[in-house]
Amino acid sequence: MAKLREIHGEAGEKIVDALGDVSPDLARYIFEFPFGDVYSREGLSLKEREIVTVSVLAALGNAESQLKTHIHAALNVGCSRQEILEIMIQMAVYAGFPAALNGTFAAKSVFTERDASGNQDR
Amino acid sequence: MAKLREIHGEAGEKIVDALGDVSPDLARYIFEFPFGDVYSREGLSLKEREIVTVSVLAALGNAESQLKTHIHAALNVGCSRQEILEIMIQMAVYAGFPAALNGTFAAKSVFTERDASGNQDR
Amino acid sequence: MAKLREIHGEAGEKIVDALGDVSPDLARYIFEFPFGDVYSREGLSLKEREIVTVSVLAALGNAESQLKTHIHAALNVGCSRQEILEIMIQMAVYAGFPAALNGTFAAKSVFTERDASGNQDR
Amino acid sequence: MAKLREIHGEAGEKIVDALGDVSPDLARYIFEFPFGDVYSREGLSLKEREIVTVSVLAALGNAESQLKTHIHAALNVGCSRQEILEIMIQMAVYAGFPAALNGTFAAKSVFTERDASGNQDR
Amino acid sequence: MAKLREIHGEAGEKIVDALGDVSPDLARYIFEFPFGDVYSREGLSLKEREIVTVSVLAALGNAESQLKTHIHAALNVGCSRQEILEIMIQMAVYAGFPAALNGTFAAKSVFTERDASGNQDR
Amino acid sequence: MAKLREIHGEAGEKIVDALGDVSPDLARYIFEFPFGDVYSREGLSLKEREIVTVSVLAALGNAESQLKTHIHAALNVGCSRQEILEIMIQMAVYAGFPAALNGTFAAKSVFTERDASGNQDR
Repeated sequence: MAKLREIHGEAGEKIVDALGDVSPDLARYIFEFPFGDVYSREGLSLKEREIVTVSVLAALGNAESQLKTHIHAALNVGCSRQEILEIMIQMAVYAGFPAALNGTFAAKSVFTERDASGNQDR
Repeated sequence: MAKLREIHGEAGEKIVDALGDVSPDLARYIFEFPFGDVYSREGLSLKEREIVTVSVLAALGNAESQLKTHIHAALNVGCSRQEILEIMIQMAVYAGFPAALNGTFAAKSVFTERDASGNQDR
Repeated sequence: MAKLREIHGEAGEKIVDALGDVSPDLARYIFEFPFGDVYSREGLSLKEREIVTVSVLAALGNAESQLKTHIHAALNVGCSRQEILEIMIQMAVYAGFPAALNGTFAAKSVFTERDASGNQDR
Repeated sequence: MAKLREIHGEAGEKIVDALGDVSPDLARYIFEFPFGDVYSREGLSLKEREIVTVSVLAALGNAESQLKTHIHAALNVGCSRQEILEIMIQMAVYAGFPAALNGTFAAKSVFTERDASGNQDR
Repeated sequence: MAKLREIHGEAGEKIVDALGDVSPDLARYIFEFPFGDVYSREGLSLKEREIVTVSVLAALGNAESQLKTHIHAALNVGCSRQEILEIMIQMAVYAGFPAALNGTFAAKSVFTERDASGNQDR
Repeated sequence: MAKLREIHGEAGEKIVDALGDVSPDLARYIFEFPFGDVYSREGLSLKEREIVTVSVLAALGNAESQLKTHIHAALNVGCSRQEILEIMIQMAVYAGFPAALNGTFAAKSVFTERDASGNQDR
């Protein structure tokens, strides 16, 4: 729970709450496995873990809302906006330009949202 | 070309040579775009770039030989073996356990190969 | 046609009508192959066939509107809401948590729609 | 740039402009690699190249807005509407009926848009 | 562990052992999450759970060895060979004929292996 | 059947025979739907249809043996080797360089096989 808040802020709790209404066990597994187990592990920094997650979601390209959630998370744990954009440029090589463009436009929308709420990213 | 050698060592040249026999223009584009443009950019370290690439290839799961090539590359530019295994554990969350298992077995095979050739990874 | 109505109710006819406007041959193939041939086969119950279809669509994650259509269909042919949610929990293992979450939210939206229209699922 | 305009008309410039605001280097790579290098190659006609692109985007199914952009482009460089619909029928065989339906509905929406703006496709 | 043995027989332990050599934590998570949590849940029968898993793996098409492992598992927990083949026929509709053919050939190879070891499936 | 032989030569019959041993109904559907219905349609030439199929299989990247079968088929119905290689170059843009490389190596292996059997492609 603390890990969820550290990475996702209030947005994470809202998603887990919305999920808990319909599938409380899936919500519980999210606390136990990704947050209780994986994100609490040593071996990679939280910033590196979010680089992994943003890369996977941008490459698979079938979970736009979660890609945005994790671009927020990456910025929350120390990635700069430029680093997010670099990940998307690299998508062009390994997953194709459509993945790169969609990832970049997702990032643009997250940046705009954070500007509007006064968030001061690196 | 220097960038290719820095990341992939001799293995990279062999792949590009094999490709150049049949499609010299595609081989040229690989020098120009991924290596000339993308991997030469600042904004992410080479180690972070290989974390991105290994994550994408493990998640997509349709390019096993290139996944192995980039696990080698990641180890060449400063990732530890444990960091590779952590990326694969994170695959379980975002791309499912089959991707995590296949990625881990690809890593195991790369580690065995490097042990046999006396490579001293971190 | 009878099979289409049994599985999808009126919603199926609407989709096939909308399709028939632009590509009548594709609409005809849908009657002939999936409904005329596959869903009319013995060997799996209609309920088991919809478990297959919902699983595939939730895993591929690139056809949200058809995933919802088939969650409706699964409920129409005898799946309970809890069974749909169990399929989505299993997605977390084999296709990753993003697929599980998106599938669960698709199910939630279908359940809400059916509650509003007075549908009494198991 | 001329190639971009030939294929995509004004729509292409709008996308590249929107991209250039946030990631000018990715916009530049789009001019250099897909348009400067690939679409300028001989060996396939522009019409055949758009058949390739529409096929890939309809099969991957994770870039709906770019699928529409390239259905426009295919019509701009000489594909008929019927040929687009044939590609989507073939999707049913190789990528499944959901890909075929989504591709057909994307085509329908492009056709409607072009009718509204008085575009006279073959 | 009991659940792993019930579903996969000795083959499951071999895979987890091979995994445990290189990534003991991932092996532990497999005991805890898929087997400890998900396969132990009520709400779907083991047979229905294997129908879900075989469907997902045949559709994604990027984990052939695990597809075979789960065709074995499905036969172990009560699916008939004919039911496996029906799932693959349904793949033709939702994931395309290549997925259907690859799934059917994977099943054929599993059937041959089980015939050779005297396994009496339904 | 005539269409199958025109496109795939003897190789097609071998695959359908191997399939018919285990799943005769799936073999029958292949005659009825892809070959009886789709490939027999007007609206696209056989060459254009094979461009579609090779593009889809190279992009999805999860059916290597069928990709090779259809590179053979494309050459059988009038594509030149250079055109196959152009399709693969275009994969780099829309599906990423790994898809482009794997497709090019699949083509190389098909070309070698055809050279060995004295096939005179354009």
